[in-house]
Amino acid sequence: MTDINLASGASYFRSPAPAIRTAIQALEAGATGHGTAEGIPELRAALVERYRQEAIDITPEQVLITPGSKQALFYLFTVLLQQDSNEVVVPTPAWFGFQELMGYCKGKMIQLPTTAASDFSLPTSALRQVLNENTRILLLTNPGNPTGRVYSKQELEELLEVTKEYPNLYVISDEIYDFVTYDGPFTSVLACEGDKERVVVVNGFSKSFAMSDWRLGYLVGPQELVKRCTAFQAATIAGVSKFLQKGAIAAIQERDQVLPSMLEVLQENRTLMASGLKEIPHLPFFVPQGAYYFFPDFSHYLPCSTPTSHILNSSIELCAYLTEIYKLQLSPGDFFGLPGHARMSFAVEREVLAEALSRLKEALAGLIQSE
Amino acid sequence: MTDINLASGASYFRSPAPAIRTAIQALEAGATGHGTAEGIPELRAALVERYRQEAIDITPEQVLITPGSKQALFYLFTVLLQQDSNEVVVPTPAWFGFQELMGYCKGKMIQLPTTAASDFSLPTSALRQVLNENTRILLLTNPGNPTGRVYSKQELEELLEVTKEYPNLYVISDEIYDFVTYDGPFTSVLACEGDKERVVVVNGFSKSFAMSDWRLGYLVGPQELVKRCTAFQAATIAGVSKFLQKGAIAAIQERDQVLPSMLEVLQENRTLMASGLKEIPHLPFFVPQGAYYFFPDFSHYLPCSTPTSHILNSSIELCAYLTEIYKLQLSPGDFFGLPGHARMSFAVEREVLAEALSRLKEALAGLIQSE
Repeated sequence: MTDINLASGASYFRSPAPAIRTAIQALEAGATGHGTAEGIPELRAALVERYRQEAIDITPEQVLITPGSKQALFYLFTVLLQQDSNEVVVPTPAWFGFQELMGYCKGKMIQLPTTAASDFSLPTSALRQVLNENTRILLLTNPGNPTGRVYSKQELEELLEVTKEYPNLYVISDEIYDFVTYDGPFTSVLACEGDKERVVVVNGFSKSFAMSDWRLGYLVGPQELVKRCTAFQAATIAGVSKFLQKGAIAAIQERDQVLPSMLEVLQENRTLMASGLKEIPHLPFFVPQGAYYFFPDFSHYLPCSTPTSHILNSSIELCAYLTEIYKLQLSPGDFFGLPGHARMSFAVEREVLAEALSRLKEALAGLIQSE
Repeated sequence: MTDINLASGASYFRSPAPAIRTAIQALEAGATGHGTAEGIPELRAALVERYRQEAIDITPEQVLITPGSKQALFYLFTVLLQQDSNEVVVPTPAWFGFQELMGYCKGKMIQLPTTAASDFSLPTSALRQVLNENTRILLLTNPGNPTGRVYSKQELEELLEVTKEYPNLYVISDEIYDFVTYDGPFTSVLACEGDKERVVVVNGFSKSFAMSDWRLGYLVGPQELVKRCTAFQAATIAGVSKFLQKGAIAAIQERDQVLPSMLEVLQENRTLMASGLKEIPHLPFFVPQGAYYFFPDFSHYLPCSTPTSHILNSSIELCAYLTEIYKLQLSPGDFFGLPGHARMSFAVEREVLAEALSRLKEALAGLIQSE
């Protein structure tokens, strides 16, 4: 039995050919002297143009090119969180990386639970209850990871109506999966009505463009905040490779050529995984509107006993069992702040996906529910 | 008159052909999925082998691949400096980046002045005077920037004799110019007798291999400390591009092919700049043993008056004057903690260097010394 990894956050797709070609040309031309901290003007301009086409008006000075979107978040957290009493509100389930990052920043993370039963929606009443004068950041992930939930423009604007009552609060929207949506157009928080001075987007090329090894991200925000993040980047990492940024320009500019084929595969894989999961009894799931994960609820099966009478108490133990016996890796929901669930990527080859679903079905069928 | 930039820290050389070729091959092969936080095993092994050839015995677990050597220092400062009372002792003149980095870390920098009159040596008596129970780091730069001073093995071991009396003190040696030396073999602090548990080297490919835009550095230190830095890197930047690391392997493994031609040019440029500076009256300088800068002393000319009767009071003002009137950029010594001096790179094209020296001679001859 071969190993199957549905736990990874990276897709199996290759980076876009135009990005690779352009980076190679820059390397061949010997363009290996270092650039400026904020990023090369051509890439910032390409991103300004990208947003302009979405009716979002920003200037190049509002864009900082970073080595990955997580590093962009690290700058924002470092700059915005100045006291241990500062709070970052994160609707959960959310990516485990946020909590890990907090270990290197001041302040604390406040989880705001959402549920599959409510389609992972974020009611303004729940948001209102958790916000207070210490809240510095509301960190949204849109499309959601692991949920695949996409917030509508209306939902976002309702949330911004609430946050605007807190003058020290920034809304940071992690939109790293923004081009990976299935059920209609995606709306960036930047396109919403509201106080633009307190809205920031972090984004990058790892997910939508399958360029995770390029370590290329960016943030878009109010100019003064971007300036402070740029100073931090200048003092620590200096900047991002120019020749890699040139590759990113090709990716963003030729996105209408490179994205559709990937999205078509993902769309089909989503359908395949939805049908596969539906065939498994007692496994409710939300159909993702974006990103490339399902996050089914295994609660019915927990706790349970394996055919060899081992007790599995949690999704961590269930995932360990699937890895050991069925060579199938999923990400336990515990990592995302929602035990009982597990994240399953469908950004893998078609045959791999079919085999994974078949193994999961067989594995769950063999479990005996405990009291 | 064309602009001449002797202020840059990047040389004019192209990155080594084998590094470019190897990175291109990896890109063409589509090797764009992300790797592990600590770096790819092959590059860590290549660095272990590099040090083994210098009779330095380290394990791969003691090596962390970072996006630049400054970022490596940032990790070390963050991990080692836990209190605002912690001190980092830095012999000056030193690279301005250290001070800039301190703005994003706890603790404070304590300058330990050295002088051209004493060949920028660092007497153990002076070191002893500045060390105390709050000192956490002695940060050496070897070869020195901007001085070009190379510490001998004996000097290093004498310094380590002093630092070993302070059990909370780490010696960090920035050896980014280690392959750029002129007067004999370079000795890494890792080759010295002393407590290996408290010695760390930061290094990278930007200087010796003219790969500044690749953003590739590394640190070598005690395993436990490397582990903590790796966790920090994992939480923030995730890691360094695998395909770029493959290029770095080619650079380090083929260094005997790629370095000599660059060093030959630099050796000749050093001779040329030494003769050029010698022709200018009242401009004492130390002949660099490593790196690619001269750092002459302009004190005789300061303060002075320009032919149009502007008063120049400092090397900052002198450099601004040279830039404005002679289109010649140098780095003022004030940036390095030694006013009255200026750093001049000789890692530029031969004709540019000759023209720069001619402009400098003419400029200084036109200045009228003030009282």
